[in-house]
Amino acid sequence: MNGNMTAEMMQSMAMDAIGMPAMDTMMMQECIEACSACEQACTMCADNGMADGMMKCASMCMDCADVCNTMMRMMMRPTGFDMASMQAMLRACMTMCSACSDECGNHAEMSETCRMCAMACDACMKACESMLGMMRDAEMA
Amino acid sequence: MNGNMTAEMMQSMAMDAIGMPAMDTMMMQECIEACSACEQACTMCADNGMADGMMKCASMCMDCADVCNTMMRMMMRPTGFDMASMQAMLRACMTMCSACSDECGNHAEMSETCRMCAMACDACMKACESMLGMMRDAEMA
Amino acid sequence: MNGNMTAEMMQSMAMDAIGMPAMDTMMMQECIEACSACEQACTMCADNGMADGMMKCASMCMDCADVCNTMMRMMMRPTGFDMASMQAMLRACMTMCSACSDECGNHAEMSETCRMCAMACDACMKACESMLGMMRDAEMA
Amino acid sequence: MNGNMTAEMMQSMAMDAIGMPAMDTMMMQECIEACSACEQACTMCADNGMADGMMKCASMCMDCADVCNTMMRMMMRPTGFDMASMQAMLRACMTMCSACSDECGNHAEMSETCRMCAMACDACMKACESMLGMMRDAEMA
Repeated sequence: MNGNMTAEMMQSMAMDAIGMPAMDTMMMQECIEACSACEQACTMCADNGMADGMMKCASMCMDCADVCNTMMRMMMRPTGFDMASMQAMLRACMTMCSACSDECGNHAEMSETCRMCAMACDACMKACESMLGMMRDAEMA
Repeated sequence: MNGNMTAEMMQSMAMDAIGMPAMDTMMMQECIEACSACEQACTMCADNGMADGMMKCASMCMDCADVCNTMMRMMMRPTGFDMASMQAMLRACMTMCSACSDECGNHAEMSETCRMCAMACDACMKACESMLGMMRDAEMA
Repeated sequence: MNGNMTAEMMQSMAMDAIGMPAMDTMMMQECIEACSACEQACTMCADNGMADGMMKCASMCMDCADVCNTMMRMMMRPTGFDMASMQAMLRACMTMCSACSDECGNHAEMSETCRMCAMACDACMKACESMLGMMRDAEMA
Repeated sequence: MNGNMTAEMMQSMAMDAIGMPAMDTMMMQECIEACSACEQACTMCADNGMADGMMKCASMCMDCADVCNTMMRMMMRPTGFDMASMQAMLRACMTMCSACSDECGNHAEMSETCRMCAMACDACMKACESMLGMMRDAEMA
């Protein structure tokens, strides 16, 4: 339901009209959901990582949660869309998710939380990569 | 999927073990999802409200998005659970969502975004109210 | 410089004109700075708390950092000012800062970071209390 | 005082010991303060921009406030320091601040808030640039 309402609102905001290039809204919606899921997974993993004494993992998860939340919000603000800022932020989010996934992956065998967090990071990284590819295509079109 | 993974991670974190009182995790999961949906709706409504020249609405939506994100994150950190802080924050979130819903409701007829945002605020307010009731029951038990 | 520019911008925004009751802007500026300092102290303490294995402390500091950031932002948005929401959030921030200060205070002897974080929490709690008192006076005037 | 306490805490955390390369802590402290000032300026400018009907400006300021807050927090978490993520995020912050400064600069003559916000964005962009340069030097050393 969450995702559906966000998608509906996005469409009702008629983004094309206010600057954001015509984009595959389905793909952006998937990216928004992946960022939201990754923020949530990282927030929980940071809290749990501490319990298990995995300091580096918890610290990276806190970073990753903040990066994903910022990424998500930027996609939800078409009015001030700036191509270069969006692309740079998508790259930052991909790099952060990749690093966090690697770190969480190290503990995936002993921590179910880390295993699921790494999956959320991977999904978010891929969704940002798809967005970036779509934006490159839109620029060239 | 988003909600499912969050619920699974919450369970794998075995919250009871680290301080948070035994709570209806289903209810908390619903509250987390309602906060997340409300943050997203308010972030979009703030961006759109500006487009329509609804200044007060947009400003309240920015406040409400931040409050809901903070509320959501607090519920995702059982390790440092503090009953009084959680209750005070739930009250703040309810008050904020109620005020934001009233303001968005004023524009619901002319703005589909505002109409959906008001609905997300109402749902979040109710979910926080249920959490608060459950916590009171847990305290008395 | 940070604080000065914020104060200047606050004045240039002429808050009274847009709904927020005439308030002691100096006091609000102090509260904004206290929230910002507390967010920063808590963010560092959460990162460091993990290094020292103080899990509950780190988790509470993450909560407190988010609450203080939201509190600060609300004070910086006079356009959508809502008395009840502001008061409830000030109470939530006070309760959170008080709990976090207590927890950090437990480690103040062995951790300089915790000692300073507890001080930032106390200062933030007091600044919020002053704001709340001022708002009560403004309501009665 | 705010900046001083942050600097003291940073030093007490002995960052070198936990992964972050030996860096000019003075420069990082300046970058942290610039991010904090920029988040504050952008949050106020977004609220005020709406009052003046400058939609694109307000939306970009909301993005920039979130990016700067995330940037600031990442620098405050040395435990999970990851060189590639930090560099990508510094680039995203620079790009965002540059775009936001350009947009606010368009309204600087008629809005004192926009004029000051553009200054805060420029200062933040430069501070991030210095950090990036220092990190490149540290990598090569």
